[in-house]
Amino acid sequence: MKVVIVGAGFGGLRLARKLNNRPGFEVVLVDRFNYHQFQPLFYQVATAGLDASNISFPLRKVFHGSENVRIRLAEMTQIHPERKEVVTDKESISYDSLVLALGADTNFFGNEQMARHSFPMKSTAEALQIRHSLLQNFEECLAITDHDELQRRMNIVIVGGGPTGVELAGALAEMKKYVLPKDYPELDFKKMNIYLLEGGGKTLPTMTEKSSVQSLRYLENLGVIVMTSTLVKNYDGNKVELADGKTIDAATVIWAAGVKGNVPPGFDKSKVVKGNRIKVDRHCLVEGYKNIYAIGDLAYMETPKYPNGHPQVASVAIQQAELLADYFRRIERKSTRFYEFEYIDKGSMATVGRNLAVVDIPKPRLHFGGFLAWLIWMGLHLMLILGVKNRFFVFFNWLYNYVTYDQNLRLIFREFNKPVK
Amino acid sequence: MKVVIVGAGFGGLRLARKLNNRPGFEVVLVDRFNYHQFQPLFYQVATAGLDASNISFPLRKVFHGSENVRIRLAEMTQIHPERKEVVTDKESISYDSLVLALGADTNFFGNEQMARHSFPMKSTAEALQIRHSLLQNFEECLAITDHDELQRRMNIVIVGGGPTGVELAGALAEMKKYVLPKDYPELDFKKMNIYLLEGGGKTLPTMTEKSSVQSLRYLENLGVIVMTSTLVKNYDGNKVELADGKTIDAATVIWAAGVKGNVPPGFDKSKVVKGNRIKVDRHCLVEGYKNIYAIGDLAYMETPKYPNGHPQVASVAIQQAELLADYFRRIERKSTRFYEFEYIDKGSMATVGRNLAVVDIPKPRLHFGGFLAWLIWMGLHLMLILGVKNRFFVFFNWLYNYVTYDQNLRLIFREFNKPVK
Repeated sequence: MKVVIVGAGFGGLRLARKLNNRPGFEVVLVDRFNYHQFQPLFYQVATAGLDASNISFPLRKVFHGSENVRIRLAEMTQIHPERKEVVTDKESISYDSLVLALGADTNFFGNEQMARHSFPMKSTAEALQIRHSLLQNFEECLAITDHDELQRRMNIVIVGGGPTGVELAGALAEMKKYVLPKDYPELDFKKMNIYLLEGGGKTLPTMTEKSSVQSLRYLENLGVIVMTSTLVKNYDGNKVELADGKTIDAATVIWAAGVKGNVPPGFDKSKVVKGNRIKVDRHCLVEGYKNIYAIGDLAYMETPKYPNGHPQVASVAIQQAELLADYFRRIERKSTRFYEFEYIDKGSMATVGRNLAVVDIPKPRLHFGGFLAWLIWMGLHLMLILGVKNRFFVFFNWLYNYVTYDQNLRLIFREFNKPVK
Repeated sequence: MKVVIVGAGFGGLRLARKLNNRPGFEVVLVDRFNYHQFQPLFYQVATAGLDASNISFPLRKVFHGSENVRIRLAEMTQIHPERKEVVTDKESISYDSLVLALGADTNFFGNEQMARHSFPMKSTAEALQIRHSLLQNFEECLAITDHDELQRRMNIVIVGGGPTGVELAGALAEMKKYVLPKDYPELDFKKMNIYLLEGGGKTLPTMTEKSSVQSLRYLENLGVIVMTSTLVKNYDGNKVELADGKTIDAATVIWAAGVKGNVPPGFDKSKVVKGNRIKVDRHCLVEGYKNIYAIGDLAYMETPKYPNGHPQVASVAIQQAELLADYFRRIERKSTRFYEFEYIDKGSMATVGRNLAVVDIPKPRLHFGGFLAWLIWMGLHLMLILGVKNRFFVFFNWLYNYVTYDQNLRLIFREFNKPVK
């Protein structure tokens, strides 16, 4: 069976590894980047705590010596289901089974002004852009004398109180506390405001009440201005307009308030459901097709336990990849017994800052906060990072940052002030 | 005394550090990057052995807690000697003494086609561009079926047989030998040719005869096609034209065949001499000015020992910075005794590959080759890199590469195929 997997995120990569060197399988893994991105740590790249390379793993290295996995650095432009072929910007590739594992991208909900002026953070490159822009902004503050303009420059607004927003807000607050005043002794960082805006009633809405309350307390202790039940209407590059008519002047807005599935161009719209996700059955098969599958953030699957679909998190993608690998192997050996997907939620966590994190585990029902949660968070993330060297470098960077209170990758490798779209 | 230093390379940074927290001095250090670049290892960034951040050190971190050094991320656009002021793209800065430490940039000797199509390697960003382009090129080779076009894509031409050219050729040859065939099992790397073209009669022309001979042997053993007494006439993006009428088809040409001083815009042309360098006296004072100095690659100084000027290397810049710091301190304490600059050549070295390097030391007259020279080269470069953390990361990267035969930073963080000018 020739399996073409499009997307090398948590789902696509896991599936390719599961089929690696399996007799009877030929695999083509297509991605627009030549590396796997470890999304949970984007926020540390953005805040200069980790190097982009620390959380990026070259795909070709994963499949060194593989007999059956081929990698293509390409962007898919079309699918021809009738002749079982995908077209990329470089070539056409035929398949027996096609797996769409393209993940999700930032959702600005159609607001183009918002999209143009605020920063998304759904790729390593976007995380680097945030880092460069934050630093460039402070460099420019040094030459600004107008009080209002300086205040606008010193305000940072993060939209979205989920894990990404919370973790980013916490990391920025620590930069403000420990690093920035030393870097820019000429600037008054009492003026720097970090706003975290959340549309719902609490931070970390998908976690337990305990985690929500604790994360809010941690953030407020770090000086983050958390505004819940606050909806953003617009941002023109200067001013954030809220639904209640209030405004916040800010030069930097980071948008972490929603995602939408990366449906490939030209894909049958009738299969696309809410959140721009592709409806699949419990074997990850796209409804109406015999050999097109979708997994991970892009896939929308209803089960009795999750009647409104699964959360768009790494562990769902990984478990779906494992189910699908098993499914393909059963097809190959002409088995007729197939398992249906059942998500096992192992828990969720978020870190706010030094010694501060929250961890929820559903079975047994456990909650951790503070230092212990922070240790669990670190240990787990280290385990999940691909490659011994990356793991070591991340660990050493963390140790260094912890001991010195200094995220020292404050390097502007790219010269621009505005997001590159 | 208010000293404005433009350029934070080896010379400018050393001078700023020497004046750091010295009573009586106010220092402004201006650079267009927010980090110091460790130029000697650019070639390892280009060949995916080191991370850009490993050899880049945030300037603001160097001067944490400094009472008198201020940093400005800016580009100098003009000098007004009459009112003792420099203008940058952000603001005007007055000075008592101005030190030009802008270094040197790639010299394409007026050949615009050459400049447009070949890669320079005089900044971290340019080194990263080479890395990205090399990798992107192999990715694209996978979809190429035409034999001639594939051969053109597999040819890499390096122009210039000095240390940069030699080190880069050696590192590429090792990638070809150890890494690329594993990354791209579908490509035939017997077809990959690495050409090193040198206009003069030997590689490493500024070193001893022994070093030249050894480096040539090392390179040829690694499979590099070394062509000495070979002048390049042109490169149109497809074909390298040599002076003798021969041509080499190549998609990638790296230009390491000459530098020119970065004379600031609008600077008095009458002070600019050969190599686009600024003529200075033995106190680094620009002739005809009372308070404008130049040091390092940009400065041209004649001494009895160096009647044709000094080599454009880091140690000249560092020694000139130290002389100038002493000079300024003497001025401040109204001393009238000043030392004249005398360059102390501590030796030179170049590395070709694993266990292969050459080292020349003039006093006592010593030469090392092979493994011992390689150890000396590594030890010295580790010592010279700024910052404990960078030193550790470089060391660990080297150790990793040495043990695994794998430069594993093969990451394309930027999406482009052509050099960005």
